[in-house]
Amino acid sequence: MRVLGVDPGLTRCGIGVVDSLPGRRVALVAVSVARTSANTPTEARLLALARTLGEWMDMYKPDAVAVERVFAQRNVMTVTGTAQVAGLAMVEAARRGIAVAVHTPTEVKAAVTGSGGAGKAQVQQMVRRLLRLEDPPTPADAADALALAICHVWRGNRAGQMARTGGGGAPGGPAGAGASGGTTAAQRQWLEAERAARRRR
Amino acid sequence: MRVLGVDPGLTRCGIGVVDSLPGRRVALVAVSVARTSANTPTEARLLALARTLGEWMDMYKPDAVAVERVFAQRNVMTVTGTAQVAGLAMVEAARRGIAVAVHTPTEVKAAVTGSGGAGKAQVQQMVRRLLRLEDPPTPADAADALALAICHVWRGNRAGQMARTGGGGAPGGPAGAGASGGTTAAQRQWLEAERAARRRR
Repeated sequence: MRVLGVDPGLTRCGIGVVDSLPGRRVALVAVSVARTSANTPTEARLLALARTLGEWMDMYKPDAVAVERVFAQRNVMTVTGTAQVAGLAMVEAARRGIAVAVHTPTEVKAAVTGSGGAGKAQVQQMVRRLLRLEDPPTPADAADALALAICHVWRGNRAGQMARTGGGGAPGGPAGAGASGGTTAAQRQWLEAERAARRRR
Repeated sequence: MRVLGVDPGLTRCGIGVVDSLPGRRVALVAVSVARTSANTPTEARLLALARTLGEWMDMYKPDAVAVERVFAQRNVMTVTGTAQVAGLAMVEAARRGIAVAVHTPTEVKAAVTGSGGAGKAQVQQMVRRLLRLEDPPTPADAADALALAICHVWRGNRAGQMARTGGGGAPGGPAGAGASGGTTAAQRQWLEAERAARRRR
């Protein structure tokens, strides 16, 4: 399974592509941050981002596109642009018949770090570790896009597994991060964070 | 000059096309409300609206697309969808090389009714009068899209006139609504409302 994650933004839009490997491992395919200048009219910025997102989908042919859910309550000054870029990512995927999934920042942080309240540096470090990279991906938008894609790989797998085991299946948490068998502290933490994220939704 | 106005919304998206005529009059070309169902996945709703907006632009070939400015502070529950549809309208216009303008609800109300705080019914009645329609356009989204287009015709004209007269030019208000020569009460009201709208921006 290949997932393209989008951390939407008008000034910086993170795009990360990840493949799922056997044993809940994940591999980096490509990552980038598309940038547009605040001096450019909004419609031109949006069009440039829509084109870049479409080109990435055509090039990497993901099975799913995972987009960060935008909350109107947060970052009131930038939420309009962020929501617009998220919408464009969804439309470009739908145009190509690619499945679309939306995950909250808390779900993503919980999936990759075990804590829904993790900081940017922690997410970057876990993404580096999970994808076996030499350095953490920068800027944070690149790491966030990869974290979204990883989160979707795992949540997708977990949803399938839960369906097979009747809803009470094993956690699909950061097992790829090094844990092997049993329920690790990180997995328990992850499950709790995820439950909390669900309650807040 | 032909303007296509968009009152963005995920459930109901107003689309109205207006031509400017000599003497600040305006004429209805076409109006519609594109609807999508809340039972449909968001990406499919957004794609359907993007396609409808693009088709209207191809069919009516407007010189400009006027979109309502979305404020994150208002209608927190629906602002994400509204912002996304506004973004799609901007992108579909930019894709076709059509000029994009954004107007605030207050600017639009001030332009067509003379009061930035006018209610929906007042806007509908003035749009009916300005376009010489038998009945006010319904639903309100249709009237709002037409009001946006009319506002842009006038603000565009006024901006041109102000440039010619050094910034203090004649008001471009609802002269087409029946006023002829001199400054009518409605025009004064409109100028005041517009100044207030500018201060609030």
